[in-house]
Amino acid sequence: MSRKIRMGMVGGGRGAFIGGVHRIAAAIDQQIELVCGAFSSDPEKSRLSGEDLYLPAGRVYGSYEEMILREKELPLGERMDFVSIVTPNHVHFGPAKMALENGFHVVCDKPVTFSVDEARILVKLVEETGLIFALTHNYTGYPMVKQARDMVRDGKIGKVRKIVVEYPQGWLATRKEDTDNKQAAWRTDPDRSGMGGALGDIGTHAENLAEYISGLKITEVCADVTTFVEGRRLDDDANILLRLEGGAKGVLHCSQIAVGIENGLNIRVWGETGGLEWHQMEPNTLIVTQLEGPAIHYRTGVGSDLSPASMAAFRIPAGHPEGYLEAFANIYKNFAACVQARLAGTEPDPLHTDFPTVYDGLRGMIFVEKVIENSLGTEKWTAM
Amino acid sequence: MSRKIRMGMVGGGRGAFIGGVHRIAAAIDQQIELVCGAFSSDPEKSRLSGEDLYLPAGRVYGSYEEMILREKELPLGERMDFVSIVTPNHVHFGPAKMALENGFHVVCDKPVTFSVDEARILVKLVEETGLIFALTHNYTGYPMVKQARDMVRDGKIGKVRKIVVEYPQGWLATRKEDTDNKQAAWRTDPDRSGMGGALGDIGTHAENLAEYISGLKITEVCADVTTFVEGRRLDDDANILLRLEGGAKGVLHCSQIAVGIENGLNIRVWGETGGLEWHQMEPNTLIVTQLEGPAIHYRTGVGSDLSPASMAAFRIPAGHPEGYLEAFANIYKNFAACVQARLAGTEPDPLHTDFPTVYDGLRGMIFVEKVIENSLGTEKWTAM
Amino acid sequence: MSRKIRMGMVGGGRGAFIGGVHRIAAAIDQQIELVCGAFSSDPEKSRLSGEDLYLPAGRVYGSYEEMILREKELPLGERMDFVSIVTPNHVHFGPAKMALENGFHVVCDKPVTFSVDEARILVKLVEETGLIFALTHNYTGYPMVKQARDMVRDGKIGKVRKIVVEYPQGWLATRKEDTDNKQAAWRTDPDRSGMGGALGDIGTHAENLAEYISGLKITEVCADVTTFVEGRRLDDDANILLRLEGGAKGVLHCSQIAVGIENGLNIRVWGETGGLEWHQMEPNTLIVTQLEGPAIHYRTGVGSDLSPASMAAFRIPAGHPEGYLEAFANIYKNFAACVQARLAGTEPDPLHTDFPTVYDGLRGMIFVEKVIENSLGTEKWTAM
Amino acid sequence: MSRKIRMGMVGGGRGAFIGGVHRIAAAIDQQIELVCGAFSSDPEKSRLSGEDLYLPAGRVYGSYEEMILREKELPLGERMDFVSIVTPNHVHFGPAKMALENGFHVVCDKPVTFSVDEARILVKLVEETGLIFALTHNYTGYPMVKQARDMVRDGKIGKVRKIVVEYPQGWLATRKEDTDNKQAAWRTDPDRSGMGGALGDIGTHAENLAEYISGLKITEVCADVTTFVEGRRLDDDANILLRLEGGAKGVLHCSQIAVGIENGLNIRVWGETGGLEWHQMEPNTLIVTQLEGPAIHYRTGVGSDLSPASMAAFRIPAGHPEGYLEAFANIYKNFAACVQARLAGTEPDPLHTDFPTVYDGLRGMIFVEKVIENSLGTEKWTAM
Repeated sequence: MSRKIRMGMVGGGRGAFIGGVHRIAAAIDQQIELVCGAFSSDPEKSRLSGEDLYLPAGRVYGSYEEMILREKELPLGERMDFVSIVTPNHVHFGPAKMALENGFHVVCDKPVTFSVDEARILVKLVEETGLIFALTHNYTGYPMVKQARDMVRDGKIGKVRKIVVEYPQGWLATRKEDTDNKQAAWRTDPDRSGMGGALGDIGTHAENLAEYISGLKITEVCADVTTFVEGRRLDDDANILLRLEGGAKGVLHCSQIAVGIENGLNIRVWGETGGLEWHQMEPNTLIVTQLEGPAIHYRTGVGSDLSPASMAAFRIPAGHPEGYLEAFANIYKNFAACVQARLAGTEPDPLHTDFPTVYDGLRGMIFVEKVIENSLGTEKWTAM
Repeated sequence: MSRKIRMGMVGGGRGAFIGGVHRIAAAIDQQIELVCGAFSSDPEKSRLSGEDLYLPAGRVYGSYEEMILREKELPLGERMDFVSIVTPNHVHFGPAKMALENGFHVVCDKPVTFSVDEARILVKLVEETGLIFALTHNYTGYPMVKQARDMVRDGKIGKVRKIVVEYPQGWLATRKEDTDNKQAAWRTDPDRSGMGGALGDIGTHAENLAEYISGLKITEVCADVTTFVEGRRLDDDANILLRLEGGAKGVLHCSQIAVGIENGLNIRVWGETGGLEWHQMEPNTLIVTQLEGPAIHYRTGVGSDLSPASMAAFRIPAGHPEGYLEAFANIYKNFAACVQARLAGTEPDPLHTDFPTVYDGLRGMIFVEKVIENSLGTEKWTAM
Repeated sequence: MSRKIRMGMVGGGRGAFIGGVHRIAAAIDQQIELVCGAFSSDPEKSRLSGEDLYLPAGRVYGSYEEMILREKELPLGERMDFVSIVTPNHVHFGPAKMALENGFHVVCDKPVTFSVDEARILVKLVEETGLIFALTHNYTGYPMVKQARDMVRDGKIGKVRKIVVEYPQGWLATRKEDTDNKQAAWRTDPDRSGMGGALGDIGTHAENLAEYISGLKITEVCADVTTFVEGRRLDDDANILLRLEGGAKGVLHCSQIAVGIENGLNIRVWGETGGLEWHQMEPNTLIVTQLEGPAIHYRTGVGSDLSPASMAAFRIPAGHPEGYLEAFANIYKNFAACVQARLAGTEPDPLHTDFPTVYDGLRGMIFVEKVIENSLGTEKWTAM
Repeated sequence: MSRKIRMGMVGGGRGAFIGGVHRIAAAIDQQIELVCGAFSSDPEKSRLSGEDLYLPAGRVYGSYEEMILREKELPLGERMDFVSIVTPNHVHFGPAKMALENGFHVVCDKPVTFSVDEARILVKLVEETGLIFALTHNYTGYPMVKQARDMVRDGKIGKVRKIVVEYPQGWLATRKEDTDNKQAAWRTDPDRSGMGGALGDIGTHAENLAEYISGLKITEVCADVTTFVEGRRLDDDANILLRLEGGAKGVLHCSQIAVGIENGLNIRVWGETGGLEWHQMEPNTLIVTQLEGPAIHYRTGVGSDLSPASMAAFRIPAGHPEGYLEAFANIYKNFAACVQARLAGTEPDPLHTDFPTVYDGLRGMIFVEKVIENSLGTEKWTAM
């Protein structure tokens, strides 16, 4: 008999941010059940978090190691089917590796690891185990982002010439890490975030979005990475020139000192015969431009010529705005469908395999490494 | 020990629309568990729908009567705590009445009943039983709608002079009821919808929103109600002049023949010293205007002077857009908190009592009745 | 040999508003030369205003009567070709009538006269003399308004069903007439404005725009006209239900107490197969909606399927925004071309006859009269 | 006695674009009179153009040399006061130099010359002669651009950290230079445009706008300049990293292959305590962001805290949109006031000296030269 997929969570205890997002995203489509968790490295905090989530005490663990080993002993169907990893960056690799080694599928927050080397190890493990690995580059979950990708792939704007992708935020314009803001504290700490600050946190989203929509890999970067806020130990701003496969050029800039900007991920792509424009803060519109004639404003769910992937990515009729959580949920929904297919011994619908994977994670790690290498060096272009 | 609130659903089987919305809205905050349902008047369809939702067969019923009686026999904590009614309008009253008479709290879709008389009976029952009754006028669940209401209440725009509220849609511009569109079929059928077409379906949302934000009751209406699509049996368009308490004036227009408009619920309110503007399709912005000086664009979660009700109504940081489903979920979240308080024998936090009730339902029914009476008659103004 | 058309102005002296607008509008296309004026009823003020405008003293007159009689004595080619009347409403009829009676073409600001009767007299005079009479309902001069009219006329949205036209402003939300604001003073004074306040000043623009774009005449009105600001002698707000030829319905609301709104003339028209939306404050965009498929954003000068009238109404390439003054200038440009044709003894290009005339003026006067009659009476609908 | 300033034009004959813009801009405020011209290097075409403009035949010249020499012989007050140069780039230097050498003030289109060396010669000549020289970097003429500059100067956003300025256009996405489009032909021809294509045509506008608003000079550039359209001889796209005085960083990108974009000059500036955002295609709005609290949408003419320069730069009340031509006219208006002051032997009001000069022209030439040098070379940063 069919059942919901069972999730165990690493991280996301009281006071965390992204863990709650993952739980909502997993809950929205009612295909996933939270059955256990190691919500904090502090066992008492993990226990209290489990209570908040109405979990039985026996399924709330003091560490991810304990969770993985104990759950593995439970019968299939009772034990968790996958691990969701929502910790700060430096605690992605450990649980991901151990989960894969013990036969659990994985959903992991981004960036995938702390270093390129760790990312390569995970790639190898995923390939060896054949387990399902989703990385929550959630912005690719929006219907109009999928529509954009499909239009580029189908030649609707011709060969891509130029990409402008940007991700300004303003929340770290001051020393928020000196307040009690936990998010700010670990994101500006190289021991927990890795070598990239804004670059790792949001620059990788921009990089992933550009490659996802254009279908082109970035081949070279030329960067100017800056720490504007005095005393901060990681970058809070980056301006980057891009070169991509096929001769396309681009600009990527991201910032966490863009005062007053909330979460301004935007992308524009111009090809030989058309253009695309998408704004994360108004995500249900995709503006399509043409060589001659007026701009067409595609909208989530409006019209009969939207792509299948776009049409599969929303839940309610046009004009009832879906947002960030629903886009995030699309990753969980597709991931769950793939796990269901695995349980049933079938192949998933190709539409359901449309989520970022460990390979996207590796790209992101290389991107951060190469951008910082270029910014610190004197050569103009660095290959990636 | 604390536990999730337990929901039984009436309606919402395969092919329905609003039932799925209710289930998502109930799931988002992970405070509510779907435990049983009578999903269709067709028992086989109900059974299949229950399977889709991973419910045990024994908790899937062939009728709401059966569900209410059988669940009542289960022990508290196992049985459902409340009924969620998501059927077409003509099947609201029956299950709502029976649920209340048997001690179950109720969440009911709008309009609350088929007639004013039925609505009055429910009001009486709610008052007599003291049970909790939420009506899903979901647009009042948006953070910026709550902010607007709070700013009016706190005098930020002075005494209200004028309200313009509008709700155009285009999806019924042709005879969609002749296709296999179930939503169109029952909404244009007086036997299932009641006396109002567009008026009942969306006009009541506009009326509710205007009264919610302004804090003023509509006192008189002057209306021109039209059926544009040939052969249709209910109105698909209405233009209405409003008079409200305290000398305020207004315009309310709604339509389902506004070709190409998705879900255009918008409201503007002008007082003696300021103005407010809110658009459902860009719901996280509230534009505030002043006698002198520039317009201020309030945004969900931005800044320190947002009202407590507004701040309690979103889940993720500014710029990560929340939409229709999250606003809808706010009704369930508050309702669930009230039910939890009842179970715990305590009083709910006043912030949690902020959801539409059976009284809003009665207002809506009176509005539909009076608008149609005015439109058919020759008198200029009809009191309501 | 060809020469510029010669303009004499009535009104528009120091401190006036609309006179300066007319002079800029006449200057933009360099087809019209200001040669004389009676800029004020105060001869000294008229004289100073003439100096400001670099006019020779001998062509600056103390009254419009003097100007018309004296100019008439000058040889053709030296004397003015037409009179531009930019006085408050109560001084439109006099100079217009005298100009026509003495063989001068006329450009007149709106509303055309003080009363319906005066308007009828001017209609008769224009018909008898065959002189050219332009009324500056300037909003019809925008390229995208012409595009909208042409698309409706050409059946691009099917038979018109519904019109929503609105004109909120906020500048009279307080007793501005008690300050030294001359514009506010005469506009709120029934002896200078006529029977309509906001209704005459801006309501007539909305009425004219609706009839221009839809090609339909308003047949009945049902109105609620209000004076919100205490002590004010004319209306500052009106909400009106419309019925139009062919069964179309509509809403027109205008206000000068809409705090913080600058000049919010907007119109939406829905037909059986499409819709149109235009906003005066973003005038170079026309949003066109369809039964199926995405909205198309027409832009001034973009694409090859714009109508000839639209293409003739801008000066510079797309994206270099033209605004209010250029739209206003389009009336002068077309008027000048018609006068040139008259001088040359030829027929004007039909594109050049596209400007509002004395007949539009008469419609506006009837509109104001009937709306106020309805608002004061008890009958629901008043024919117009 | 006061009189209008008298303009002689070089270029701008039939079929030209920018000449017409200059004539409208000069006409709008009625302070300038076109009295003569050498409209084309083809004398017959110049003659016909003069006829179009109602000029007497004797004041229409076959070459700029003839015009300057012959006009110089006329008495002051009859002869032109200044030369307006609206030719393609390679014919800026000649007439500008000769005009200055013969005592005429100059308005010149941008870029100021063909090379940095020529620009330096003009700087020297302006300094030696003391004549007035305006360069039509017209985008600085917008009221909200002046407001932005004044807010930065007055510390309203704190020390500037980051600038993103962009200027995408789409009109040269195909080989338009092979059609009969004259604008395309000379702009893509290095013999007439100089070393920069998009870079000179629009990149200089972006550079000028960034320096104008921020008050900071660009100190280093790192560029990737591209020709996307096959066979084109000049660049049609550029992506540039900027470093500015005081440690500010920036991105400048411009393009003429951004399909479907009309004239997308946009700028964002973030300082330590605030941010600014302005879009040329919606020029009457300036969005101001803050560390805490909502965004404020400043609008042309709205409110009492706008800067004097901003308040002096519009003509009609808020909400009556002024656009490109009015912004352009602000340069002519200020220039004319300075010439009037010179004629009167007085000092101009400092507000009237707010227009781009020959120094801005030199900056632009250096910018183009250094960007291309950097793009062709291997060093990462090139000083400018």
